[in-house]
This record gives sequence, C-alpha cells and structure tokens, in this order.
Amino acid sequence: MGDGISREELQLAARNHGMPLEALAHGITPIGLHYLLVHYDIPVVDPGAWRLRLGGRVELELAWSLDDLRSRDDAVTAPVTMECAGNGRARLEPRPISQPWLLEAVGNAAWTGIPLRNLLDEARVADGAVEVLFTGLDRGVEGGVEQRYARSLPLEVARDGGALLAFAMNGAPLPPQHGFPLRLVVPGWYGMASVKWLGEITVLDAPYDGYQNARAYRLRASEDDPGEPVTRIEPRALMVPPGIPDFLTRRRFVDAGLVQLRGRAWSGHGEIVRVEVSADGGATWREAEPGVPAGPHSWTPWTAAWEAEPGEHELCCRATDASGRTQPAAARWNAGGYANTDVQRIAVTVR
Amino acid sequence: MGDGISREELQLAARNHGMPLEALAHGITPIGLHYLLVHYDIPVVDPGAWRLRLGGRVELELAWSLDDLRSRDDAVTAPVTMECAGNGRARLEPRPISQPWLLEAVGNAAWTGIPLRNLLDEARVADGAVEVLFTGLDRGVEGGVEQRYARSLPLEVARDGGALLAFAMNGAPLPPQHGFPLRLVVPGWYGMASVKWLGEITVLDAPYDGYQNARAYRLRASEDDPGEPVTRIEPRALMVPPGIPDFLTRRRFVDAGLVQLRGRAWSGHGEIVRVEVSADGGATWREAEPGVPAGPHSWTPWTAAWEAEPGEHELCCRATDASGRTQPAAARWNAGGYANTDVQRIAVTVR
Repeated sequence: MGDGISREELQLAARNHGMPLEALAHGITPIGLHYLLVHYDIPVVDPGAWRLRLGGRVELELAWSLDDLRSRDDAVTAPVTMECAGNGRARLEPRPISQPWLLEAVGNAAWTGIPLRNLLDEARVADGAVEVLFTGLDRGVEGGVEQRYARSLPLEVARDGGALLAFAMNGAPLPPQHGFPLRLVVPGWYGMASVKWLGEITVLDAPYDGYQNARAYRLRASEDDPGEPVTRIEPRALMVPPGIPDFLTRRRFVDAGLVQLRGRAWSGHGEIVRVEVSADGGATWREAEPGVPAGPHSWTPWTAAWEAEPGEHELCCRATDASGRTQPAAARWNAGGYANTDVQRIAVTVR
Repeated sequence: MGDGISREELQLAARNHGMPLEALAHGITPIGLHYLLVHYDIPVVDPGAWRLRLGGRVELELAWSLDDLRSRDDAVTAPVTMECAGNGRARLEPRPISQPWLLEAVGNAAWTGIPLRNLLDEARVADGAVEVLFTGLDRGVEGGVEQRYARSLPLEVARDGGALLAFAMNGAPLPPQHGFPLRLVVPGWYGMASVKWLGEITVLDAPYDGYQNARAYRLRASEDDPGEPVTRIEPRALMVPPGIPDFLTRRRFVDAGLVQLRGRAWSGHGEIVRVEVSADGGATWREAEPGVPAGPHSWTPWTAAWEAEPGEHELCCRATDASGRTQPAAARWNAGGYANTDVQRIAVTVR
C-alpha cells in the first residue's frame, strides 16, 4: 500500500465497518458483524408515520404502512450474501479515495420481506416501463450533488431477480443502520443496489440518470471515462484466518500439524463450482471441499485440510463460478475501486 | 493529523468499529451501532459446554453453566455507557499506533446479568484477597506476549462497583462480538475492564502483573515510563452532527435558522453537572440544557438551541462532572493514546 490512509478515509472507516473474517465461521452473519456502508447519515424514521409509495409508470399508485407489509401473507425469508462493490478497494495501487475496504465488506443475513414482484404486479406496471427506481430517506451531498440516495434496476431484474422488500434481518426488525423500517435486497448484486430506508419506488419509462447510477458505481478506466455500470457480484472466496493473531499486525501464528482451513465463497453470476487453496502464495493450488449453501443466494461453505509445517507460509484461496468467472491473481484497477477480487493472502507463521 | 494511517492501523479500523455519531439520537444504542474493540479474534463458544469458574482466594470454588446463571432470580438490567480508553487516539500528534479511533468508540447498552458481588459472596472471599482477575476465552499475541485477554480489578471495585456478569444486551442474548455467552460489565470504567467471553474469575492475594494491567492501558509519558493505570472514564460530551453530510469529507451543511443541537455526555467520576456548547470554535461558550439519564451509569442527554446564520462555523461541546473534571481544549498526549477527551469540533456550512 503506497500512501497512508488520509483522515477523510479514516473518518469513513470509523463509521462503516466490515465483518471480522473469523465471523465467516457463522453461516448466518450475526447483526453487528454484517458489513455496513452508509453514504450519508443513518436516518431516524418514525415507523408509524412512514409509508412506502409506489408510483410512476403504473396503472395504480399504491402505498403501504409498515403494518400493511408485516401483516401480508406473502412474506418470504431468504439468506442472501451481500458484498460492497468497493470491497478490496484499499488493496489497489494507486488507491481510489473512498471508504477504504480491505476484504471485510461482506455478510450473509437472513432477510424477511415481501417479494418486490408482488407489489409491482399489484400496481400493474404500464407499457413502456424500462426501469424501477428506489429512493431512500437518507440525504447528503456527494460529488457536489445534494441528493437522497437513489438507485434504479432494470425492470426485468426488479420483477424476476428475486428482490425482497425486507422488514426483518435474522428474525428481528431491521436495525436502524441496515435500513429500518424497510430496505430493498437484490440477490446477487453488489450492495449499492439494496437501497436502505426505502421511501419510494418509481417505475420509469427511461433509464435513470441520477448520481448513483450515472456517476458513482461505474467501472471506469479513468475519472473521465463514463465506464460501465457495476452490477452483479464477482466470485470471491475468503478464509477464516487460522491460528491466533498478533493484536497490532494481525499476523497469524499456527501450531504445526493438521489444520482444517475453512471459509465461504460466493458469486452473483452463478453457483460456486470450485474453491482452491494455496499454501505457497499461489504458486500451487489444490481443490477445497465445497459444502452446501443454505439457499440459491447464500454463500457456499468450504474446507481444506492443510498439513502445516514449521516456517513461514502464505495462504490463499480463490473461487470459480458456473459462469466460468474466477478470481484474478492481480487486482483489476479501476478509478472507483470497484469489484477488486484479487485473492486473499494470509501470512502465517507455523511453529 | 500528521502521517497517514498505516495498513496495520487500517486492518484494525476495518475490524473494530465505532458508533456513527448520529446514533447518539438513540438513548439505548442498537446492537451493531455500539462500539466494538476486539483484541484478538472473536471466539466461537459452545454455550452448552461453557462454564464460568470462580476460584483463587475463596472458601468455595464454584462453577456455573449458562443455564445456571440465566435461571437465577437475582438478574438485574442496567444501562451502562461504555467507552474505549483509546477513544480520541487518532486525534493525538504524534499519533500512538494502535486502533485509530477518532471520537466514535462509545455506546450505551442495556446489560442484563448477575451482580458480580452476589457470586463473590457465594464463594466467600478469603482473608488476604486484594484483587479479582477476569480471564477471557480469546487468545492472541500482544507486545510479544502470547496470552488470553485478562484484566484485574481492585477487590472493592469488584465487590462494590456495581459490576455485572452480563448474558444479555438490549434484551437479547449477547452477540458473539460482545462476549457471548458472558461478559463482565464494569460501570464507569473504560471498556478494557469489561472482559468479554469470560471463562474464569480468580480472586488474588497480590496485584495482577499480567500484560493488560502492567504494560497496556497505562498513562505513560513515554514508552519507558511505567505510568499510572487507566481506570475510570473521563468526562466527555458528543453532539449529533447537525444538518446533512458530504459523503467523502463528512463536512456538514445546515439550513439557516433555529437548529436544535443535541447530544449525550458522560463521566465515570460522577454525574454530569454541566454541558456547554460553542458555535465559534471554543472562543465563547454557553450552557446546554441537560436531560435526565436513564440510570446512574447511563449517559446524560442534552440539547441546545442555536440560531444558525449563513457562513462557516465550528461547533464544539464539552462536559463537566460532579468531581470538577472537565474536557481540555487541547489533547493530553500519552504514549498509549488513552483518555484523550479534547473537545469535539464540527465544521459546519450554514446556507
């Protein structure tokens, strides 16, 4: 890592938080360990006064209270692996300046809510609709633009992509920081799509050109490049760091002998078909044993036995999905620092 | 801030997390917003196999299962403001190298558990006892010493200081990261005293000379100075940053007119007797209106009306407690970066 982290980046790192990687041991990430990125401030929402409004290119404009949504009989619960598009950003050289994630911006919660498709069907999407816009109650300034956080999805993703309007996380009401009283959850997409503190859903007849779609969250070769939109999650495997850590350096110490390495792998482009591990910094690889994911959008557990011999080692892991995508050995730089999935590397002293 | 934050500090900042300051709006800090500092790894504890053992200078060695503790009839619930001793560390010049906290390392949870005094009385503390040692199940290397996290308290604090052995936080079982299945909570003391993942309690007949008491958590003028122990929380007031933020800089924008400033103040040395605010960077101060704390160890809410006029302003707040302690205008440097309570400063653009 070149330059030190600036105070502005530290301010973001002190507010937002990753999932400590030993929490990969939990199939469902406990609240408070799931990663969190908040663009502006966490709003305090009065759930009694709050309404979800659905309008735009629909035949019926509709609104629901929180009780309306909670008392419906079509709620479903699904474990969904969510990752920040900026995960891995602080591993890039030069480092794009934003929330300085290393590898921890991930989590796998059990979300309970109403399928988005059901509400769109009730409002009857009109001819000519192409996108659906989701607007949060959080407000701030970004890139010089005062805005409420808002992101659109293509209509077919909104209707057929398994998106939920979630009012519960791990069986409890949404915590304030994860979008109370209601958030969108878009399986397989990076977290920027899963708008928190949802206020309005608007069906559009033209692509949304607002800040978070048109300027932020794009894969750009330079600041001037309009780039391509960031969408689905690229495959990644992460490992529970074995042994015990040094407090300050986080360097690992492992007792010699048989060590059961374990972790999770996920992709938004298809199921995980292979996880590989390396104990020599990626010079040689062998296959890990994949387990069974808790659902189609939930990460895949994996294990790999390692005969740890005294000395210094660099452990790595990488995932490949059914679409054929795999993790690169070297980072793919882009101006916003998105979708960097270069492999995890853990320096380990075996003694 | 002088030098940029190092990768090692960033690794800590990505794992541990503060309370975003807008969460001062919540009297009881929701889980996931309360600050978190984990020295080593978060252990995964089997609650069925787990036992709390109490031994050392006692007449009866005792042990309890989690069910034993949960089914007792002497559990109490208390809101306790907890703050990391290193809060404010990254505001010091030069910056001591450890978890780089700015101001967010605080929270006020409702802890439910068994008064420590009751268990000590059941074991009958023997003559000659002077301290009580609390040993966690978390293990790592720190300052070159392999250890389980362990801290002692003077016997009179352990017996008469209102300490709880907590198995619930905000009415739910302790989350893994806050010490499941059981943690110590020591009201009024910095967080290092409230040992998480508690395994053993040992009554000692001599002061504990282990790492976390004898080397870490001391107010030292230099690395060679043995220093004085860090104990109770110094007074501090913090404010909900008003208006809306810029994403990257966290600079605030406020609409002109009457603004109700609000925040919380606390001290481990006595009740809060005065909170003051300044809108001119501390050149002039006036008193805020204190509210009523939810309990003797819970932070005190406060409000202050501010007539915001267009232009640039620096908002500050400071607290004074019943012991006469107040916050300094300039930081008090020490080698470990502990107990820095220089006043919060928020740059605000009123428009």
